[in-house]
Amino acid sequence: MRTLDNDRFLRALKRQPVDYTPTWMMRQAGRYLPEYRESRKKARDFMALCRNPELCCEVTLQPLARYGLDAAILFSDILTIPDAMGLGLRFVEGEGPVFDRPVRDERAIAQLPVPDPNVELRYVMDAVTTIRAALGNRLPLIGFSGSPWTLATYMVEGAGGSDFVTIKRMGYDAPELLDSLLAKLAASVSLYLEAQLAAGADALMVFDTWGGVLAPDDYLRFSLQPMAKIVAHLKRVAPEVPVILFTKNGGQHLEAMADTGCDALGLDWTTDLGAARARVGSRVALQGNLDPAWLFAGPAKIEAAVARTLASYGPGPGHVFNLGHGILPTTPPEHAAAMIEAVRRLSPAYHRAD
Amino acid sequence: MRTLDNDRFLRALKRQPVDYTPTWMMRQAGRYLPEYRESRKKARDFMALCRNPELCCEVTLQPLARYGLDAAILFSDILTIPDAMGLGLRFVEGEGPVFDRPVRDERAIAQLPVPDPNVELRYVMDAVTTIRAALGNRLPLIGFSGSPWTLATYMVEGAGGSDFVTIKRMGYDAPELLDSLLAKLAASVSLYLEAQLAAGADALMVFDTWGGVLAPDDYLRFSLQPMAKIVAHLKRVAPEVPVILFTKNGGQHLEAMADTGCDALGLDWTTDLGAARARVGSRVALQGNLDPAWLFAGPAKIEAAVARTLASYGPGPGHVFNLGHGILPTTPPEHAAAMIEAVRRLSPAYHRAD
Repeated sequence: MRTLDNDRFLRALKRQPVDYTPTWMMRQAGRYLPEYRESRKKARDFMALCRNPELCCEVTLQPLARYGLDAAILFSDILTIPDAMGLGLRFVEGEGPVFDRPVRDERAIAQLPVPDPNVELRYVMDAVTTIRAALGNRLPLIGFSGSPWTLATYMVEGAGGSDFVTIKRMGYDAPELLDSLLAKLAASVSLYLEAQLAAGADALMVFDTWGGVLAPDDYLRFSLQPMAKIVAHLKRVAPEVPVILFTKNGGQHLEAMADTGCDALGLDWTTDLGAARARVGSRVALQGNLDPAWLFAGPAKIEAAVARTLASYGPGPGHVFNLGHGILPTTPPEHAAAMIEAVRRLSPAYHRAD
Repeated sequence: MRTLDNDRFLRALKRQPVDYTPTWMMRQAGRYLPEYRESRKKARDFMALCRNPELCCEVTLQPLARYGLDAAILFSDILTIPDAMGLGLRFVEGEGPVFDRPVRDERAIAQLPVPDPNVELRYVMDAVTTIRAALGNRLPLIGFSGSPWTLATYMVEGAGGSDFVTIKRMGYDAPELLDSLLAKLAASVSLYLEAQLAAGADALMVFDTWGGVLAPDDYLRFSLQPMAKIVAHLKRVAPEVPVILFTKNGGQHLEAMADTGCDALGLDWTTDLGAARARVGSRVALQGNLDPAWLFAGPAKIEAAVARTLASYGPGPGHVFNLGHGILPTTPPEHAAAMIEAVRRLSPAYHRAD
C-alpha cells in the first residue's frame, strides 16, 4: 500500500490506534457547496459531469480545500454500472434517475452484459487516476459502488420509487430470476471496485441505499448475499484493502453484515452507535452516524451532538466519524465546518493511550 | 364491554386463547377496492368523504362484505386533529397533504387549541356511532389517531416530506418548544381517542408513521414519550380497552414501546416476528407483519408467505395477523382474499390446546 501523509481513516477502518477520530461526509462533494454548483454549470447534465475526469477531480477536491477532512471520495454516481449495461440512464428534473429500458424478464436479464470497467467504465477509472494524481500522497481516496440490490431496484423499477412493488414481485414470484440478476450485478460490481483499486483507490465502500426496505430473510438473500460475494472477491484480490458496507435502515442486520468479512459498517442515525459497537464487538470498525438534519441546527448544538456521538462510540479505535446519510443539498457549508472542527477538537480524548 | 359475535381480535390483543389468528388489514377500506372508488365519487374531495358519517360507514363496511375479516376500522384520516386546530388542511394531487398555516414558532404553538372531540371533531364521533350501529355486535371496531410526533411532522413541515429538516431543527435547537407542541398533541389525541371509545370503538390504535426517522434518543423523547402519555390516559379512563402502538421502522424500540403499558405492538415487515416475540415475551401482543408488496405475488406464493409469517410467530396466543403497512392502492382485491383465506385455513394449527 502507498504511504500517506494522513492515514488515520485507513487505520481506523483496521481498528488500529489513531490520535483523533478521522472524519469524512457522505456526499461531501455536492450541491450544498457553491463551488460545486459553479463546476456543475460546466457540464451539460449530471452524467456529463460524471463522465468528465477533470471535472470529477475538481469537485472531489473542493470539500478538502474547505474542511479538515481525512478522506476523499470519488465523485461519481451509483448508477454508472446499469448505465454501462445499456439501460439508458436519464435524470428527470424532480423525479430522479429513470431508465428507458428497465429489466424485467429472463431474456432481458440474460442479455445484460457484465461491463468491462476499463472499457465501458473507463471514464470512472480515468477520474480515479486523475484524482489520485491531484491528491498525491496527502489523503486516502475512497472508491465506491451501489450494492447489487440497490442497482437492481432502479433497473427493474425503471425509476426511483417508494414501494418497490415490481422488483419485490419478481423476488416473490421468481426468486431465482432475481438471484440471476443480482449475481450478474455482484460480478460487475466486483470487477468495477477491483478496477478502482488498480486506478488508485485506497478503500472501497458499497452503498446499499435500499436494503432496508426488505424483510429480514429477503435482505439476507437479495441484498446481503450479493454484497458478501463482492467482499469475498475483494478480499481474494486485495486482502489488505478496507471494505465498508452501508445498508440504510439496516440496523437490525449488523451481525450478519459483519459476518461477510468486511472491515467496517456504515451506520445511519437510527441505530445507536454504542449499542452497535456492543453487538459487533471488535469484528468491524463503525462509520457514522450523525443525522444530516443536525447540520441545520446552530453550531453550539452541533458541537453537543458531535460530543454525544463520540461518547456513544466511546474510547478506543475503530470509529470513523461521518453523517448517517448524505449531506443534504441545502446544508449551510459553515455548519459542516463546525461539525468537522468539533470532531477534531473533542475526539483526541477518546484516543489517549493510558 | 359489549358482547361481540366475533371477539377474536380483542382476545388476541389481550393474549387470550382463540381458535384461529384474527386478521385485519391496515387501510382495508380504500382505493384498491372498486366499490370504494365508487363511494369516493359521491364526495367533493377526500376530506369531504371523511366529514360524511354515512359515507365513512359505507366504506368502512365494504371490506367486511368482501372478506372474512375479524375487525372493522373507522374510515378517517390521521390529520383530522391538526385540521380541527385550524391549520387549513388540503390534499394536493401528487403531493399529499398540505397545511396552509404551518406551526413553527412559540406563538403559533401557544395559540393552538386543544380541540373538543365532540365539537370540532363531531363528524368523526358521528361516523363511529353510525358504523357501530351498522356493525351491530358482529365485530369489534378499531378507533385510531396519528401519533403526536407524526401529526407534528405535517404541522411543522407544512407538507409531507422525506428529510423532516424543519421539525428536526426545532427539536435540536429548541427541544422544549417541540415538547410543548407534542404535549398539546398528546392531550388532544388522548381526548380524541377517549371520545371514539365513548362513541362505540372497542380498541384503539396509534399510528406513528414517522417515528422511525428519528435517532434513538430523539425517538424516545419526541415520539414515544407523547404516546406513553396517551396510553396512560386511556388506561386511566378505560383500563380494559386494548391499545395498539405502531411505529413504522420502529423495530429497534420494541422493548421501550412495550414499557408504555400498551397491549399490543404493530410491526412492519422489516422486523422478524419471531425475534420480536422473543424480545417482548408475554408483555404485549404483536400485530403484523406481511409486506404489502406480497399481495402482488401469485396466490400460491402469498399462501406460502402467510405460512412463514404464522410459523415465525409460532404457537400460542397474542398474534393478530395484518400487513406490515397499509395495503397498496394498486393491489388486486382477490389477492387480499387469498391472504385472508390462508390465515383462516393455516392458523388453527397454532391454537390447538394440547
